[in-house]
Amino acid sequence: MHELRKDPVTGRWVIIASDRAGRPTDFVRERQLPSGGSCPFCYGSEDKTPPEVLAYRSSDLPADSPGWRVRVVPNKYPALRIEGSLGRRAAGMYDLMNAVGAHEVVIESPDHEAQMADLTEGQIAEVLWAYRERFLDLQKDTRFRYILIFKNQGAEAGATLEHTHTQIIATPVVPKRVNEELDGARAHYDQRERCIFCDLVAHELESGARIVGQNAAFAAIAPFAARFPFETWILPLRHGAAFEATTAGEIHSFAALLRQTLRRMRSALDDPAYNYVLHTAPARGEAASEFYHWHLEIMPKLTRVAGFEWGSGFYINPTPPEVAAATLRAVDA
Amino acid sequence: MHELRKDPVTGRWVIIASDRAGRPTDFVRERQLPSGGSCPFCYGSEDKTPPEVLAYRSSDLPADSPGWRVRVVPNKYPALRIEGSLGRRAAGMYDLMNAVGAHEVVIESPDHEAQMADLTEGQIAEVLWAYRERFLDLQKDTRFRYILIFKNQGAEAGATLEHTHTQIIATPVVPKRVNEELDGARAHYDQRERCIFCDLVAHELESGARIVGQNAAFAAIAPFAARFPFETWILPLRHGAAFEATTAGEIHSFAALLRQTLRRMRSALDDPAYNYVLHTAPARGEAASEFYHWHLEIMPKLTRVAGFEWGSGFYINPTPPEVAAATLRAVDA
Repeated sequence: MHELRKDPVTGRWVIIASDRAGRPTDFVRERQLPSGGSCPFCYGSEDKTPPEVLAYRSSDLPADSPGWRVRVVPNKYPALRIEGSLGRRAAGMYDLMNAVGAHEVVIESPDHEAQMADLTEGQIAEVLWAYRERFLDLQKDTRFRYILIFKNQGAEAGATLEHTHTQIIATPVVPKRVNEELDGARAHYDQRERCIFCDLVAHELESGARIVGQNAAFAAIAPFAARFPFETWILPLRHGAAFEATTAGEIHSFAALLRQTLRRMRSALDDPAYNYVLHTAPARGEAASEFYHWHLEIMPKLTRVAGFEWGSGFYINPTPPEVAAATLRAVDA
Repeated sequence: MHELRKDPVTGRWVIIASDRAGRPTDFVRERQLPSGGSCPFCYGSEDKTPPEVLAYRSSDLPADSPGWRVRVVPNKYPALRIEGSLGRRAAGMYDLMNAVGAHEVVIESPDHEAQMADLTEGQIAEVLWAYRERFLDLQKDTRFRYILIFKNQGAEAGATLEHTHTQIIATPVVPKRVNEELDGARAHYDQRERCIFCDLVAHELESGARIVGQNAAFAAIAPFAARFPFETWILPLRHGAAFEATTAGEIHSFAALLRQTLRRMRSALDDPAYNYVLHTAPARGEAASEFYHWHLEIMPKLTRVAGFEWGSGFYINPTPPEVAAATLRAVDA
């Protein structure tokens, strides 16, 4: 069982592997991407993953067999484990608990070569719908405080399997960065009784300089204080704190703008590695409904984060977001 | 002039390049390391850098010529510029200011091949003394709120020049992560009237399990909630918020333990890239003297930070700090 440990100064939680069987230096270098032939996410390899928890396939096909379009399985090497109690306890002056949680993988397509940007709008909408279904299911477990949905595309972004997939991690604590965002949004609401993200979207749509794209229900924006070159956020125009409250129609708009944005990035930036992270209210976050606003943050990995950023929590971004937005807008994707 | 822009939700400051002369995609890939022959940090290339602001050399040798042991110069491509006023202002709903500050480079040795770990204790002590001298000088500029000293060793850690060097950045705002640490330390002090880092050092010395090394004035510790495999902090045993108040004798103890720790990491981890960051009180931080405790955080770059970490601010560390400490202790360096 891994441990969740809390830094006593900053309150940051860290998942620490407590399996000491291997030699410690075995951990220290990146795992290599396996070759396509042995990919556990391809058709015919369904027995190489734990049994699926969700799949979209023709109804006459059996579970854990080929024929699926989207498939969700528990991670074979989970950072957090579903079994057990939290076991909150002290160790001397420190706080820790068992690394209880869920760690799942959404396999977005059976096509080993496809990236998210290669999928059709309909396929991407199915992937997003799978996120939503898993979100609603995991939320029923009262041990979980936050459900984090994120994607690593490309080895430089931390992907260890090249077959396109998304990870879902349900955690028994609300992560620090989520709390920071909630605190900032709450402070704005307390002062003005308005959602800061609604203000931000209205301001950006009026100015236009940082708009990457938009449609009936969503806007893609290069944020004013972007940390990374070509960082782009996709926000719903309708206020809502919880991703899982998104309607089927909105999911299709979201899929269309996500696809366009990823294709523009791929074309303008020579197929970059990227991460995206869904920012949504905590799992038991009814209280956040007025002041928080769910969104997706896409971060192409074009520069390396160095000591300055780690030490300071502030970033040097060599590409002004206005230039990034204009560059992406100009791409026909 | 670059800009400092503030994220309206989290309050995070970002340095944004506002030079729009180049094509935006020129920025997007890593700069390559120049070959040794054209290195601007070697003897005979003193005219390839701006004029030195500090150097240790025999007193009969002229400035900006060979013969130095440690040399500090302004960064030729600074993230922040020394000239001008802060120009704090609004842009619509946002806050920004001019990217005023200082950005200097400490060239730690004339030897192009040497790493910090190759230098003698005396040489490292001179490097640390140069940090201190620059710190005291930069602190006189009342525009600067924080002085950040950090080192990127190796391309994987963000170094763009291989010749061993440290960067010093003086900023007109206190970075967010520094404020988080100050807030946590202040909260502990308010409750207990003790420094949390003093508590932490005492606890670790008593337990011993996470001690990497120690001497008369310093301890090297694998922190309980380490974010990265083999992350190690070096803390002074004597309470003090301000690095620049360190005595000459303490600098020598610090140099000895830093050297031992870096050599142990190099030996145990196959010459890893790493960052280290000096954590010290804000430049005008008299108020922090009771509750803050300066230290150095060393972060080997062995795993890649992926989407989960970016999105959540919490980390998965596959190497328990107890294992890391025992592994490093066992190295004869």
